[in-house]
Amino acid sequence: MNTSRPRVVVVGAGFGGLYAAKALVGKPLDVLVIDRNNYHTFAPLLYQVATSGLEPEEIAAPVRSIIRRGGNVSYLMGEVTRVNAEEQCVYVRQDGAEQPQRYDYLILAPGSVTSFFGLADVQAHAFGLKSLKEAIRLRNHVLSMFERAAGEPDEARRAALLTFVIVGGGPTGLELSGALSELFQQVLRKDYPKLDVRKEARVILIEATDRLLAPFPEPLQRSARRQVERIGVEVMLNKTVAQATDEAVVLKDGTVIPTHTIIWAAGVQAAELAGLDGIAERTRGRRVRVLPTLQLPNHPNVFVIGDAAYLADEKGAAYPQLAPVAMQMGRLAAANILALIEGKPLKPFHYSDRGIMATIGRSAAVAWVFNRIQLSGFIAWLAWLGLHLLYLIGFRNRANVLVNWAWNWWTWERGVRIILGR
Amino acid sequence: MNTSRPRVVVVGAGFGGLYAAKALVGKPLDVLVIDRNNYHTFAPLLYQVATSGLEPEEIAAPVRSIIRRGGNVSYLMGEVTRVNAEEQCVYVRQDGAEQPQRYDYLILAPGSVTSFFGLADVQAHAFGLKSLKEAIRLRNHVLSMFERAAGEPDEARRAALLTFVIVGGGPTGLELSGALSELFQQVLRKDYPKLDVRKEARVILIEATDRLLAPFPEPLQRSARRQVERIGVEVMLNKTVAQATDEAVVLKDGTVIPTHTIIWAAGVQAAELAGLDGIAERTRGRRVRVLPTLQLPNHPNVFVIGDAAYLADEKGAAYPQLAPVAMQMGRLAAANILALIEGKPLKPFHYSDRGIMATIGRSAAVAWVFNRIQLSGFIAWLAWLGLHLLYLIGFRNRANVLVNWAWNWWTWERGVRIILGR
Repeated sequence: MNTSRPRVVVVGAGFGGLYAAKALVGKPLDVLVIDRNNYHTFAPLLYQVATSGLEPEEIAAPVRSIIRRGGNVSYLMGEVTRVNAEEQCVYVRQDGAEQPQRYDYLILAPGSVTSFFGLADVQAHAFGLKSLKEAIRLRNHVLSMFERAAGEPDEARRAALLTFVIVGGGPTGLELSGALSELFQQVLRKDYPKLDVRKEARVILIEATDRLLAPFPEPLQRSARRQVERIGVEVMLNKTVAQATDEAVVLKDGTVIPTHTIIWAAGVQAAELAGLDGIAERTRGRRVRVLPTLQLPNHPNVFVIGDAAYLADEKGAAYPQLAPVAMQMGRLAAANILALIEGKPLKPFHYSDRGIMATIGRSAAVAWVFNRIQLSGFIAWLAWLGLHLLYLIGFRNRANVLVNWAWNWWTWERGVRIILGR
Repeated sequence: MNTSRPRVVVVGAGFGGLYAAKALVGKPLDVLVIDRNNYHTFAPLLYQVATSGLEPEEIAAPVRSIIRRGGNVSYLMGEVTRVNAEEQCVYVRQDGAEQPQRYDYLILAPGSVTSFFGLADVQAHAFGLKSLKEAIRLRNHVLSMFERAAGEPDEARRAALLTFVIVGGGPTGLELSGALSELFQQVLRKDYPKLDVRKEARVILIEATDRLLAPFPEPLQRSARRQVERIGVEVMLNKTVAQATDEAVVLKDGTVIPTHTIIWAAGVQAAELAGLDGIAERTRGRRVRVLPTLQLPNHPNVFVIGDAAYLADEKGAAYPQLAPVAMQMGRLAAANILALIEGKPLKPFHYSDRGIMATIGRSAAVAWVFNRIQLSGFIAWLAWLGLHLLYLIGFRNRANVLVNWAWNWWTWERGVRIILGR
């Protein structure tokens, strides 16, 4: 490594960190990407892994294969435990030992984790859906519940095994509940001829407010609800979870839902990173307040991007924690570092918003294109399909995903329903 | 379940058990398939999972999807712990509890496990390659060794991290060593530009006899050795492993090979099954001696098939522990059970042998077609490719496998090199 060249350390290989690193490929600086996993996860499709629609490896791409082209970007597998802005280094834990990595410029893209809003018993019993490991764990659990139910003669106990509660009516909760219900009613119903899946398997989507998909326009919110209910999901609005045990979810109004499965999609918070609190201000959801240039106010060589960054748009609302925002922030952070080096003025972040979408099931989705055009049903689903294929990183994954999706669509099947590992 | 119909219990959903169950679909009896995994593993391709060529789910098919068509075959996920031929039942452990399953006819197809020939320290340190979990564990380990080597400044320690020892020169050892060497020299070399992979990464194949691929004709044995050495594998013949530690393999002649990776492909033995020893004779490799009809000598309603069965062919040699043998035994056991029920004479096992083949790498293989025609190189590799695509159970897997193989072949890439879970 040429030590006279500026050294950029990128923490996190999610959408933000990866797009920052890609934008720095071939530039006159050395870049080190650090992540605890040697792969980038295409997080928007985690729910498909959890519901046996896609294989885990199909939505994961090796970091090294993405960054290797330029020769100036390298990768370190390890967990960043601490930032020391004074010494300009981050500490990385690898095989138990902690080692410092010096930086001239730092891009922090640690992402977000599930937030349980302090509900310790929910945290102890709920499944999250923020990583590939969590998605596989959920897949194994769902299929195991059916295997156990198949051998359970007691009706009430069988009903509890076959009840699946999803908390949070945002895109993740909606997509997961739709995909689960389709898995049950279209595929597992055939796998378990002795179970009355249609009657006994329940997917319950619980939302604290009076609507699903808060950021969407009202007609699409109503359409999403109709579409997901048609698939068989029971939607409960204005309900809040008070307690969770091994065998039930208890709502604030006293309702007890016997279940062994509670999936938490109700909120996220920025990932922790020791040493950051001394130099940065944490705001809602523990997000780090950044300047419009994405720099930390008192540390112009430290950038925070993606889900962990808090920046208000022109109307005063925070930019949403979405992949496109993280990608665009990543590109801007890279450009601003190059500007700093060249002594040019930095640019503020402007989000080029192409809209939002959520898929609900087979041929069912809602899309708000450019935040102007409202689509729902089959046409929205087609838009969703095309966009996700386009965005999936790496041709190999794209081709395989297409094969799997085509197979699932034509046969009403899901090939990946295997219980593997813990 | 109609209790007046005969009940067949099939233990194991490998090639033998599955083909037996498939042959009984739609017949006038009830069939229960028991396996600890809810999926069938296409074991001949485990080495591709271990070397990042295929995704684990691509060589696994859900048992329920394979057997569900007939309606008379069901599946139970659990581990068979004991056979009680007196009471005509097997005991199945599921979620900690043990329950009996009554049978009128029993097909035992428990398969085989790695045999370490009593070398306890080897067993403690070596990787096996008999299950999907072992294949994933090996994949994670191999990639982790490269990640650790990338950060290791000491040359000797780096060399040990990058040395991979495979013991056993049969098809599994040969295929694995070829695929590993190709992974290193074609793919990881590009991923780790700061490592001198060509010089530092070693794949050593150790064989106790004086030849690779014992069952093949001599010209093919020599060709296989030439082909695998061309790929970069170091072949050591007439060498036996005496000891293994965390950091080295010691051979009987005193040679010490510093390594963190020893992969054991030197032998298998029939899986254990309590209660069988009282009613059956165990012979070489703990295989169970069966009559030519595949029945146990004193228990005409118990059949043993596949890797766990010992039956001599016309020349007195045991049928090999191969997938085609297990499949054909499965079909015959099913037919013989139907013959028993109908009071017809049972048929003895005859193996329709289409030959053997082993792949070595990209465009490299050997094949002994119908045990007459010798093929090697590209044409043998094409034959191997076609046959494996043909045999892979389930269209979805086949299509995905094709996409992955085509991608690997054209790009000299391997997309699945992600380190996931334990």
